[in-house]
Amino acid sequence: MSIIPCPGFRAAGVVSGIKKNGRKDLGLIACDVPASVAGVFTRNRVQAAPVMLDRERVGSGICRAVIVNSGNANCCTGEDGYHNAVRMARAAATGLGVPEEQVLVASTGVIGEPLPVERIEQAFPALLGSLSVEGVADFAEAIMTTDRVPKVVSRQIEIDGRRVTLTGVVKGAGMIRPDVATMLCFLMTDAQASAGLLRDLLAAGAARSFNRITVDGDTSTNDTILMLASGCAEAGLEPAAAREAFQAMLDDVMLALAKWVVKDAEGSNKLVEIRVVGAAADGEARAMADTIAHSPLVKTALFGEDANWGRILAAAGRSGAALDPSQVDIFIGPVQMVSRGIGCGKAAEAAATGVLKADEFSITVDLHLGTGRAAVYTCDLSIDYVKINADYRS
Amino acid sequence: MSIIPCPGFRAAGVVSGIKKNGRKDLGLIACDVPASVAGVFTRNRVQAAPVMLDRERVGSGICRAVIVNSGNANCCTGEDGYHNAVRMARAAATGLGVPEEQVLVASTGVIGEPLPVERIEQAFPALLGSLSVEGVADFAEAIMTTDRVPKVVSRQIEIDGRRVTLTGVVKGAGMIRPDVATMLCFLMTDAQASAGLLRDLLAAGAARSFNRITVDGDTSTNDTILMLASGCAEAGLEPAAAREAFQAMLDDVMLALAKWVVKDAEGSNKLVEIRVVGAAADGEARAMADTIAHSPLVKTALFGEDANWGRILAAAGRSGAALDPSQVDIFIGPVQMVSRGIGCGKAAEAAATGVLKADEFSITVDLHLGTGRAAVYTCDLSIDYVKINADYRS
Repeated sequence: MSIIPCPGFRAAGVVSGIKKNGRKDLGLIACDVPASVAGVFTRNRVQAAPVMLDRERVGSGICRAVIVNSGNANCCTGEDGYHNAVRMARAAATGLGVPEEQVLVASTGVIGEPLPVERIEQAFPALLGSLSVEGVADFAEAIMTTDRVPKVVSRQIEIDGRRVTLTGVVKGAGMIRPDVATMLCFLMTDAQASAGLLRDLLAAGAARSFNRITVDGDTSTNDTILMLASGCAEAGLEPAAAREAFQAMLDDVMLALAKWVVKDAEGSNKLVEIRVVGAAADGEARAMADTIAHSPLVKTALFGEDANWGRILAAAGRSGAALDPSQVDIFIGPVQMVSRGIGCGKAAEAAATGVLKADEFSITVDLHLGTGRAAVYTCDLSIDYVKINADYRS
Repeated sequence: MSIIPCPGFRAAGVVSGIKKNGRKDLGLIACDVPASVAGVFTRNRVQAAPVMLDRERVGSGICRAVIVNSGNANCCTGEDGYHNAVRMARAAATGLGVPEEQVLVASTGVIGEPLPVERIEQAFPALLGSLSVEGVADFAEAIMTTDRVPKVVSRQIEIDGRRVTLTGVVKGAGMIRPDVATMLCFLMTDAQASAGLLRDLLAAGAARSFNRITVDGDTSTNDTILMLASGCAEAGLEPAAAREAFQAMLDDVMLALAKWVVKDAEGSNKLVEIRVVGAAADGEARAMADTIAHSPLVKTALFGEDANWGRILAAAGRSGAALDPSQVDIFIGPVQMVSRGIGCGKAAEAAATGVLKADEFSITVDLHLGTGRAAVYTCDLSIDYVKINADYRS
């Protein structure tokens, strides 16, 4: 993981005592200048207090800081929860000397327990004291829950002879499904962009990345993606070529982060791209890819490294998408398993079993009906996923 | 398990060598007289050869025998598969001396492997030789796949002073979701009923039983429910009172079988009824109950006996059904966990943890929005579910 600090931002992560295991659980991103901001939030009808607060505040388009805790989602905590989200933001605003309404917040962890906000307030001086341009690594650690590793991706491009940086941080390992990618993600750039432009860029990037991954099909109440632009590179994104180059970099960073979430998901051993091609329409291809990607029987077969294509076809058949079983081809990696609805035999099975031992591969279903296509990313369903989630709160 | 043999039917189950473990894998139900018949089949677009054959034949309304194998689903096997289903039926027709087109078939097991139909033909004399009125127990054993126990439920009622018997057999432990209950089920009665009346009775019974259970949300390609009526009791179901009494018995038997499927499902330790009440409409209640019942995070918490109501509420929030988080109550068994969106604290948690240790309990979500209600049955997601399905074909 090579992190490129993004000009205009400092970050930090410390231990506040919210997590029971004594690990870092409080993170801060501070903007040296007022940054443009755009956000994407969970579509779950149950929304955590920090999501409610951010929705109110992000509309101003200006952000000075983001304060994040892990270990407690501050969700289903009623009016006290909302008040605690406000207090979190106030602690950051007071410490940094910035307007309170320009501070955003995020929380992740257990739902339904009161947020011990006084621990955040007590830890804030230490958090403030450790702010640095290299602090993104600590910040990434502080927002982890069941993540196995901190996840940061950085890229740079040249726009008009100026170097533009984009650094993204993500956490998320369970409660992951499209609509909207179920996690916390913070993207920092030194490009110059209005909040409106950031919103368009972020929406397009999210559709191509976090809205195409699933771990378990469950949606969090706390999903938040925030994108901040400091403008410090003095490179604008209004010209079409600059905008396109930036969008390509953003897509690249967001897809890398999204795939990393799946790869590092709870109990995950494999990152598997489910591709459906030849569908009657893109929407039908997507519905079928999602159904295959969520199928517990497909996911346990992936864990068992078993080329059980019957389960793939059975999931395809219940997706609601048009399908003629006698026309379907299925590939595991490059190995054709099914030709026009019929299994390709023992040699194909043996070859596919080799593919399934890899960490990353694709499964392709070709319906031979039209030009519709879609691809999503999923992982295997392992014994460890069950263990992690049966014991999560103990 | 107390089995009451149903007059007009004999049954048997033997080893034919299709299953690798040497267990019984071939079953037969023979009707002493031409029985009325009705069927309900999978809604998966991928349908096994025996389902295709039965769909063609069940329309005649008359059945003389049902031959069933386990260990191989005869699905995605192309024209050869269809021909093998016909051969299975022909073996039974020839052996019993009945018209071939009045023999129905069913298969369950691995998808995509050729059915070794010659083993069925070779084993048929032994199957025929062991036919008896008490043979339902062997038949129930012969249709098992990952089921832990054979499942038979019998009931009797009086109609017009005549005793009417209903005996149902079911297999199914994975690939279980509503639409339509994912398994094989055979129901035998000695009541007198036309095929048309049987269809109506069966459709109503299925809606209240097998269409309200889920194990993993995957739908089989082979789901089949067949109901046979021999008429031997000489009791007709045309009078409204008789029909209602019979429907009540049918509902009772089908629900008992359906709940047994969930209780005996792959890796299942708990039978949990998910009730949603106070929804805006019944359909919305059902959508929410289904989402909760399928949620891997809810199901792993059930396995862990963890009263993690946040996951229940998060699943409710993504179901698409209307919900005001500040109005929601949640109960685990009789214990209120959430009152108007807020957790009820440690004492409630402790009490709920006691409920979760039981084999059977309910979870109730009250939305306080309207009069819509629904209830479905699910089980926990355990380490054994993953083990069983990772190793299924090995």
